[in-house]
Amino acid sequence: MIELEDVRRAAVVLEGVAHRTPVLRSRTLDAWAGAELLLKAEHLQVGGAFKFRGAYHRIATLPPDALARGVCAFSSGNHAQAVAIAARRCGTSATIVMPEDTPTVKLAATRGYGAEVVTYDRYTEDREEVGRRLAAERGMTLVPPYEDEHVMAGQGTAALELIEDAGPIDTLVVCVGGGGLIAGCATVAKGLDAATLVVGVEPTARGIAQRSLAAGVVLSGPVPTTIADGQQGDRLGAMTFSVIRQRVDMIVTVDDDELRATMRVLFDRLKQVIEPSGASALAAVLSGRLDVRGQRVGITLSGGNVGLERFVAIMADAPLPALAR
Amino acid sequence: MIELEDVRRAAVVLEGVAHRTPVLRSRTLDAWAGAELLLKAEHLQVGGAFKFRGAYHRIATLPPDALARGVCAFSSGNHAQAVAIAARRCGTSATIVMPEDTPTVKLAATRGYGAEVVTYDRYTEDREEVGRRLAAERGMTLVPPYEDEHVMAGQGTAALELIEDAGPIDTLVVCVGGGGLIAGCATVAKGLDAATLVVGVEPTARGIAQRSLAAGVVLSGPVPTTIADGQQGDRLGAMTFSVIRQRVDMIVTVDDDELRATMRVLFDRLKQVIEPSGASALAAVLSGRLDVRGQRVGITLSGGNVGLERFVAIMADAPLPALAR
Repeated sequence: MIELEDVRRAAVVLEGVAHRTPVLRSRTLDAWAGAELLLKAEHLQVGGAFKFRGAYHRIATLPPDALARGVCAFSSGNHAQAVAIAARRCGTSATIVMPEDTPTVKLAATRGYGAEVVTYDRYTEDREEVGRRLAAERGMTLVPPYEDEHVMAGQGTAALELIEDAGPIDTLVVCVGGGGLIAGCATVAKGLDAATLVVGVEPTARGIAQRSLAAGVVLSGPVPTTIADGQQGDRLGAMTFSVIRQRVDMIVTVDDDELRATMRVLFDRLKQVIEPSGASALAAVLSGRLDVRGQRVGITLSGGNVGLERFVAIMADAPLPALAR
Repeated sequence: MIELEDVRRAAVVLEGVAHRTPVLRSRTLDAWAGAELLLKAEHLQVGGAFKFRGAYHRIATLPPDALARGVCAFSSGNHAQAVAIAARRCGTSATIVMPEDTPTVKLAATRGYGAEVVTYDRYTEDREEVGRRLAAERGMTLVPPYEDEHVMAGQGTAALELIEDAGPIDTLVVCVGGGGLIAGCATVAKGLDAATLVVGVEPTARGIAQRSLAAGVVLSGPVPTTIADGQQGDRLGAMTFSVIRQRVDMIVTVDDDELRATMRVLFDRLKQVIEPSGASALAAVLSGRLDVRGQRVGITLSGGNVGLERFVAIMADAPLPALAR
C-alpha cells in the first residue's frame, strides 16, 4: 500500500528530472463535454509517456550497491524506453528483454537510449523467466512496470502536479493497464480530497479491470484485440489492485472506434499526437460513456508514442463515431 | 513604423484573451542542432495560429462606432478564422470574403465561428475589390492580414512572451509570409537587445523576401508552388518591408522536403501537429541552412492548421532528407 506522502517524496526525487508537463485546455472540448477538462500532457514527458516517472523513482532510490550492478526490465513498450533513459540518467546500465520479433525501429530506439537489448523467442521462452535468470546471473535489479511501491508512487506525481497546477477537481479519469498510474493517481486524489471521484478507463475488449473491481478479486482474461496496445495485459497486478479496490470508484470501458475518434479530435483540435491507450481517459468523457457535465475533470493523456505509419493506419479505418457535442 | 512600446501596449490588450502559449523544448533537437532551441508554440494559440494576436488587437482597439459597424477580411486561411473569432470576442460581426471554390469544411469552420461568408469567383472577380466594395457598402472596417500597425504590434507579442518566459536569446528565427509576424517580432528582439540576430525564413520556391531585402525594395514574383500555403503571397507588404529592412538581418529559404522532414520530426519527437509554413523557421535550423551552433535560439512554430488528410498526403511523398545531427 502507498500513501500520499509516498507520492510527495517521489515528487522531490523527480523534481528537475521529469518534465512538469503542462495541463492542456480546449474551449471546444469543454463545450462538447459541458465540463471543464484539464488534460495532463504526459505524452510530453521524457520518453513520450508517464512511465519515466515510476522508472526513474525506482532506480534513483536504489541502494548504491544495487545501482552499481545495473537494472533490467522486460517490455517492448513505453516502460522499456523509460527504464533505459532513467538508468542512463542515474549513471547505471539497463538491460531490456524484448521478443526477438520486436520491430527493428523499437530495438534501435531502446539501444539508442544506451540500453543493452536481450531478445527471446516468445513462442518457446517465458519472458519473466528470461528476465529473472538474467537478473540473477548479473546481480541486476528488476524494475517492474507497475508491481512496485516506488513505481506506483512515481506515477502518482502526474496527478499531484495536475491538481497543484490546475486547482481542485471533482473527478479524475485515468487509463488502466496494469494499474500503476491509476493506483498512484487515485492515492493523490483521495488523499487530497476524499470526495473526488476516481474513474479508470480500459478497452471494452478487455474489461478485466472492471470485472475485477466488481468481483473484489483480481480476474484474468485472454489478451484482448484492441488498438490500445498499452492496455493489453491480461490482469491487474496484486499490489495495484489492492490500491485500486480502495481508491477507485468505478471503471468504464471504451471501444477502438471511440479511441480513434478521440485521437482524431486531439490531432485536429489540440494539435497533439496521442497513442491509442493515451487517449482512452479522454475517450470515456467525449464518447459520453462517463457523464461529467458541470464538473472540473482531471484527465490523463498518458502517452504519445505512435509512429506516423501506425497513426495513419489507425486513422484510415473510417468511419468514426460522432463525439459529444 | 512600430516600436517596442507598441508591442507592449498590444500585450496589455491581449492579456487574458490570447493564450500565453508555452515555449517547447527538446533535448533531442538541441543535440542535433548543437544549440538551445526555444520553440514558441503558436499552433496552440486561439484559432490554431499566431494570427489571432494581430486580428484581436486591431479589432479590440477600434473606436466604438467602427466596432459597432463590424469588420471584414478577405482570406481563406488562418487570418479568416482569426478575424471571425476575434470579432465574436469583441461583440461585433465579421464578414469574410472567400473564393467560392473554398473547401466546404473551411467555409463551415469560418461560419462556425459566427462569421458571415461572402464568396466570389476568383477567375472573374478581384477579391480586394469585392472586399472594399462590401466594406464601403456596409461601413465595415477591413482588417488586413499584415499591412497595419495594430496587426504587426499584435503579432510581436509572440516574441515578447518568448523572451520574457525563456530568457535572453542570441538569434530569433521567424517565418515570413506577408511579413507581419516577423515585423512585430523583430521590433521586440532588436528593441530589447540590438545585438540579437533576426532571421526570416520563406520557401525556396518563393524567395522574394530574400531578394527584396537584398535589393532594398519590395520585389514581387509569381505565386510559388510549395506546400507552405501560408507563404504563397507574391510580395511583402510596404509597411512590413519598412520594418523588415531595418530590423531583419537575413532571410534564408527552405524547400518542401525540408519542411516535410521537419513536420515529421515534430510529429515523432515533440508529438505536435504543425502546418508546413508553421514548421519553416525550425526547418531552417534543422536542415543546416542556418547555422546556430552554440546559441540560444528563439523559433516560431507559427500554426498547426493542417487537416489529417492533407497531413497524410504531405507525409506520403517519401523519401525525406536527413536533418542535422
